[in-house]
Amino acid sequence: MSEFLRLVTPDEALAKLNPLLKTLVNIESVETTEALGRITAQVIVSLENLPAFPRSTMDGYAVRARDTYGASEGLPAYLRVVGEMPMGRSSGITIKYGEAVKVHTGGMIAEGADAVVMIENTQQADDVTIEVSRPLAPGENILNVGDDIKQGEILFPRGQYLKPQDIGSLMALGITRIPVFLRPKVGIISAGDEVIPPDKTPSPGQVRDINTYTIGSLVIQSGAEARSYGVIRDDKTELLAKATAGIRENEILVISSGSSVSTRDITAAVISSLGAPGVLVHGVSLRPGKPTILAVIDDKPVFGLPGNPVSAMVVFDLFVRPTIYRVGGCIQPPLQPVIIATLTHNIPSTTGREDYVPVILVYSGNRYQATPLFGESNLINTLARADGLAKIPLDKHGLTPGESVLVRTF
Amino acid sequence: MSEFLRLVTPDEALAKLNPLLKTLVNIESVETTEALGRITAQVIVSLENLPAFPRSTMDGYAVRARDTYGASEGLPAYLRVVGEMPMGRSSGITIKYGEAVKVHTGGMIAEGADAVVMIENTQQADDVTIEVSRPLAPGENILNVGDDIKQGEILFPRGQYLKPQDIGSLMALGITRIPVFLRPKVGIISAGDEVIPPDKTPSPGQVRDINTYTIGSLVIQSGAEARSYGVIRDDKTELLAKATAGIRENEILVISSGSSVSTRDITAAVISSLGAPGVLVHGVSLRPGKPTILAVIDDKPVFGLPGNPVSAMVVFDLFVRPTIYRVGGCIQPPLQPVIIATLTHNIPSTTGREDYVPVILVYSGNRYQATPLFGESNLINTLARADGLAKIPLDKHGLTPGESVLVRTF
Repeated sequence: MSEFLRLVTPDEALAKLNPLLKTLVNIESVETTEALGRITAQVIVSLENLPAFPRSTMDGYAVRARDTYGASEGLPAYLRVVGEMPMGRSSGITIKYGEAVKVHTGGMIAEGADAVVMIENTQQADDVTIEVSRPLAPGENILNVGDDIKQGEILFPRGQYLKPQDIGSLMALGITRIPVFLRPKVGIISAGDEVIPPDKTPSPGQVRDINTYTIGSLVIQSGAEARSYGVIRDDKTELLAKATAGIRENEILVISSGSSVSTRDITAAVISSLGAPGVLVHGVSLRPGKPTILAVIDDKPVFGLPGNPVSAMVVFDLFVRPTIYRVGGCIQPPLQPVIIATLTHNIPSTTGREDYVPVILVYSGNRYQATPLFGESNLINTLARADGLAKIPLDKHGLTPGESVLVRTF
Repeated sequence: MSEFLRLVTPDEALAKLNPLLKTLVNIESVETTEALGRITAQVIVSLENLPAFPRSTMDGYAVRARDTYGASEGLPAYLRVVGEMPMGRSSGITIKYGEAVKVHTGGMIAEGADAVVMIENTQQADDVTIEVSRPLAPGENILNVGDDIKQGEILFPRGQYLKPQDIGSLMALGITRIPVFLRPKVGIISAGDEVIPPDKTPSPGQVRDINTYTIGSLVIQSGAEARSYGVIRDDKTELLAKATAGIRENEILVISSGSSVSTRDITAAVISSLGAPGVLVHGVSLRPGKPTILAVIDDKPVFGLPGNPVSAMVVFDLFVRPTIYRVGGCIQPPLQPVIIATLTHNIPSTTGREDYVPVILVYSGNRYQATPLFGESNLINTLARADGLAKIPLDKHGLTPGESVLVRTF
């Protein structure tokens, strides 16, 4: 079997995959306090006006704006202080011509008042009188009913990723339960005759599974549920059976191949035989990550990932993570942390291929400096030491010291 | 009571706080698969060599390097293929003069071989003979025992934040349980006469608590445990009692004040009276976030946060999050996502003050454009719509359109 059908660029690969992706998960209702990082499954509408009463945005005095017209340092307006608005309730005071009521930031505006003069713009003339040294416009320093959000207004669309401040906003509106999409389930299969579970002691020639756990952790970090199907030997029948179960029981399936060509061939053959529409991409112009397989079976995305742990991370980042968000109903995934750094050493590459190189970042002189960690020989060490992956774009023939490089930090 | 003792810059504030911070939490042992985002409580040493056997880094043939000396396209070396090394075990083959053994990437190197020739550099001469068209150096394309990590070598220091690939690396070394620091407990108190719990219906003048939930979510996102102490009215005795309990029962205490000066004064007075060394900073040259209080009581950090939700987020980001990592034993916290964007509108500021302005980010032409969301009047809306906070540095008198700005994304 030919190992590569045709290499496509990462963008071409996404363009083949994305149109076939749908939101696959159901809805559940959760406490808003438990909804951090979840995705709204319905449009969220405010059932209230916020604020629900006119509030002061400053410490000062609530006044009638017209009583301050023409006021200046030289010719201040004199207003009589008839009370103080307590925080958290109405005082019942109504102000009339020439009167003022003391008010705190966030306090309610007294009946009859239509502006707040900042305390800095007043002087105490006597015990009950203040001087106002500048004129106020009606509405100045006041937040009116519904100015922040109006009853019936949309707070969040369907598909919103809920951030910390979103949880606060929902609670502020009294929305203490919220419908969210279920977390997508991602099945993970490790394939390879040489791969054994981590709790076993390897015999000569064997290595412990690493990708189930790296990928599983990345899946959790992306807000999905990781379900491990263990390690499968290079046996087409066995792998087909597990992959079939993996697709049935999850919304997304990831098969991480061992390092040999035969494992990759078996993985490719199994994915091809799973159903329609089947394999969309087999081979991406990407290093590491060239032998990537993207497929869709019965609406469900299936990924064949290279066995090399760095490759698996690169491919996860480019293809699996955005897919998890799409299948999970998210319309705008959280931005992944990216840093622009200055390269310290040359990174060779080839035009027409996107390269990702592990780098160490050092912050100095208000800039990040990125030093490449070459040598795929030291996989565990490289992953333990690297701060991120520097991207060499498709159209670049490598990057030279001093050039800016985009680093996707871990 | 004077509201501000003396304004200090954010960096000065951290310089006062950081020397007094210690790791305050105990240690627990967890399954490595559950350790994502946790902090190692001990140095992690590899108990094994990785790889444990010499491995090929290429698909090709294991050979004796000396048998290829002088080989070229015109004058290839002819080697006899005496077998294939299966994945996952040793074949028991030992090669002799002029022999080669087929090997896959990750496969074991046959006894007697000291180099691997890539399949691309060979040609099949007949059924059992290959031509090698270039000379090999001893060790070429081979990963020797311990080349990745050696038995006794340090994999992670004490205080390592465990990322997805770290979980994979630990499992690859058979380290299936790991000692980690307990998550720090962060007590959160909301203060203010006008603040009510979210499940209550506000009367005129009242607003629902927002900061307990925004801060609580930020605490969880920082790997700590959030413990809410509810809303306390502007009563010094009551607040003192809660704050005392909050310090006793947690490693960190955060008090979020309501919007009035009186609440802030009571909060300041309570924090001052809690114990030694007490208040370190009262007032930071920061907007929003000026009325911030940093204190340490019996080795435990206490934060007085402004009531405005945007201010609370800024202050959390600058002071509380790094403190959570320090108290939780982390030596190098994960980088916070930062994007360099081009400003679309003028942002005014004042030299000597660090400003943070909510912005919307738009990606176009390979650059992010940041548009400021002015108007603190729309708090909920601003927070719901903003993609991040743009930083106006201390030494800048504002920023103009076209200038680069650092945006801390949410």
